[in-house]
Amino acid sequence: MNIDVIMRDGCRVAAVLLKWACILAGLSACVGSACAVFLWLLDQAAGTRLSHPWLLYGLPVAGVAVGLLYHWFGRTAEGGNNLIVDQIHEPGGGVPLRMAPLVLVGTVVSHLFGASVGREGTAVQMGGSIASAIGRLCRLRDPHEIRILLISGIAAGFAAVFGTPVAGAVFGMEVLRVGRIEYGALVPVILAATVADWVCHAWGIEHVPYTLGFHGYAGRDGRFFHADIILLAKVVVAGVAFGLASLLFAESVHRVAAVLRRTCPTPWLRPAIGGAVTIALVWVCGSRDYLGLGIVAPEDGGASILDFFGPAHYPLAWAWKLVFTVAVLAAGFKGGEVTPLFFIGAGLGNALSGVLHAPVDLLAAVGFVAVFAGAANTPLACTLMAVELFGAADIVYFATGCFVAYVCSGHSGIYLAQRIAVPKR
Amino acid sequence: MNIDVIMRDGCRVAAVLLKWACILAGLSACVGSACAVFLWLLDQAAGTRLSHPWLLYGLPVAGVAVGLLYHWFGRTAEGGNNLIVDQIHEPGGGVPLRMAPLVLVGTVVSHLFGASVGREGTAVQMGGSIASAIGRLCRLRDPHEIRILLISGIAAGFAAVFGTPVAGAVFGMEVLRVGRIEYGALVPVILAATVADWVCHAWGIEHVPYTLGFHGYAGRDGRFFHADIILLAKVVVAGVAFGLASLLFAESVHRVAAVLRRTCPTPWLRPAIGGAVTIALVWVCGSRDYLGLGIVAPEDGGASILDFFGPAHYPLAWAWKLVFTVAVLAAGFKGGEVTPLFFIGAGLGNALSGVLHAPVDLLAAVGFVAVFAGAANTPLACTLMAVELFGAADIVYFATGCFVAYVCSGHSGIYLAQRIAVPKR
Repeated sequence: MNIDVIMRDGCRVAAVLLKWACILAGLSACVGSACAVFLWLLDQAAGTRLSHPWLLYGLPVAGVAVGLLYHWFGRTAEGGNNLIVDQIHEPGGGVPLRMAPLVLVGTVVSHLFGASVGREGTAVQMGGSIASAIGRLCRLRDPHEIRILLISGIAAGFAAVFGTPVAGAVFGMEVLRVGRIEYGALVPVILAATVADWVCHAWGIEHVPYTLGFHGYAGRDGRFFHADIILLAKVVVAGVAFGLASLLFAESVHRVAAVLRRTCPTPWLRPAIGGAVTIALVWVCGSRDYLGLGIVAPEDGGASILDFFGPAHYPLAWAWKLVFTVAVLAAGFKGGEVTPLFFIGAGLGNALSGVLHAPVDLLAAVGFVAVFAGAANTPLACTLMAVELFGAADIVYFATGCFVAYVCSGHSGIYLAQRIAVPKR
Repeated sequence: MNIDVIMRDGCRVAAVLLKWACILAGLSACVGSACAVFLWLLDQAAGTRLSHPWLLYGLPVAGVAVGLLYHWFGRTAEGGNNLIVDQIHEPGGGVPLRMAPLVLVGTVVSHLFGASVGREGTAVQMGGSIASAIGRLCRLRDPHEIRILLISGIAAGFAAVFGTPVAGAVFGMEVLRVGRIEYGALVPVILAATVADWVCHAWGIEHVPYTLGFHGYAGRDGRFFHADIILLAKVVVAGVAFGLASLLFAESVHRVAAVLRRTCPTPWLRPAIGGAVTIALVWVCGSRDYLGLGIVAPEDGGASILDFFGPAHYPLAWAWKLVFTVAVLAAGFKGGEVTPLFFIGAGLGNALSGVLHAPVDLLAAVGFVAVFAGAANTPLACTLMAVELFGAADIVYFATGCFVAYVCSGHSGIYLAQRIAVPKR
């Protein structure tokens, strides 16, 4: 090989690296900023809802309004997360840029009127649609490059909205197929996720910090060790329950959605049913704790993710949240499943801690990530998320809970476009 | 489905779960105990070597003695790690139980006389051979079950020898193929790894604790955030260097081994060359810091993994360690590559921290795991290992370093039996 060839190859590699550095920087800046706007709007919406409780009665109408918005302007954007995953498996028409503003408005309206939805769907869809737009702008044609870019968009959105860059990166690679990780995207995803999270933070967005006091039992010598066999066995039992909760959630959403499709064939009218059911559920259970994200309770002593880490016991909060969330998601409200899954998992962990005589904050933290791991089929991303949110001391229990829940949750999952690479046995 | 069928199916599932619980408990107890004995013997060997410096001159003879041991009694055990990986891909003759005592004796002798080798090969081989023996004892015939059991053995050995259960579990699933994780083993590996590590600890074995003082830069508001963009860019540059170091190491071992095979066709005689070269290298560099594991320096001011986290700079220590290790591994000494790779990585991180103006302890920690991630093609296991050893605060840099090193290290790797599932591009 002579000097000319080396120089030419070097220049070619440098050009590719420079192109990708620019693409990823632009992607992360846009997605991080979009997530910052989104999280700020969510905060405003939650505050407004709490100070104007009557807004709940507008939920059916608000849902129909968002339904009509999608009906008139949505086109393929209706596909949501599944469209993005499909476009990664078989790059085709791309993801429309209109998906980003539509899902942003749709989710903020859902939260303003009290629907029990999450935020990750919105972040992932903003990430995917911005990535697809950047791909068109840069005239990327290689399907492999488009795939990497879309995965990076998912990772960036997830990372910025939860403030967990490594979990976001691994989530983007792990969510596409059950039982497989897309190693080809390793470096782009970690860079996109970290920079998007940094951009979101630079806009002044702060994430709620969780405190996990349990750091293992002290041994006879007074020192802590990262694993206790009895507690590990309890976490395995809890992990089975978390996996079954994931299965129950995913199956409920799919089945109730199918029933609603048959009952009400007009898609934009269906949210009215979800809204009406939510209002009825608030009457029946006599609490507004299960509306919105549920990270902080509207009043002292209510059920919320943060409260599940404390000493009070909430035996049925997880089940109520499951019903509230299934009702609106199956009816077509926008937002996503993940924060409600955190609530269901942490609540179930809280409930189980009494039965299993295990530290309540530990089981709440394990449930927080494990139910999500089972429902999204992403055990490694969820283990890393637990480490990023709760620290490294309890990593053995996080991994055990997520791995067991993954195995026990069956194949349905919350993302219908997810392919099955390796069936669970 | 009637009650009889449900009862029968339930009993069948319960029987399978009970069988596997017993198998994994037995496996973990044996592997954890074997690793405890091994680590205790290593400590004794290192102490004896330091108090009797003349032992180094016995290294060529000791190497030949171990070579003859394998020649007379080894049979297929000579295959080492590669035999285990092969048996997982294509279950056949199994892994002989004799591999465990042979590699244990071989490694302790290597360390007693000062060869620069590691410990993970020994732990993995003890785990694999004990797992294979338990499989024969329990008359397992299903290739899928045998595969899961062998992967659990690898995970248990790795977890116990380094005190990192989650990294051990993921290592077992990730090391088999480049670019793929064996999700089918998820629950058995985490249980085997955690229990084996617990058993090893219960025997009183303590692992050297590493302290990483860097926890991010404080922002304008005086608070810490988990990512800094400039530092991230520096870690990317360092990651490229770590990946190239992995490539250099793996290629050097393979090429020098090929040269030695041609020069000296008798396998059991080759260690004499490695021993003689080691003695010559000690004369040339005038230091004994590169003998043995290198976790703690034999005297104050020497180069060692722990010292690389401190303020002193060691510009060439990583290169010396690489030469010392290639010389003995290529010549057939037993032990493994991983602890020398930790040394090379941490040393290179220490050297780069001056050039890049980055915190020395952070780059030492990233190098510690990243060079290993590149050489073993296990970026996720190494990220988790860093979290288990150094805590969660710097996880973004750990992941970035490991992912970049993985991509830059090429396909050769230290495990020749590792298959390539997804080529790097």
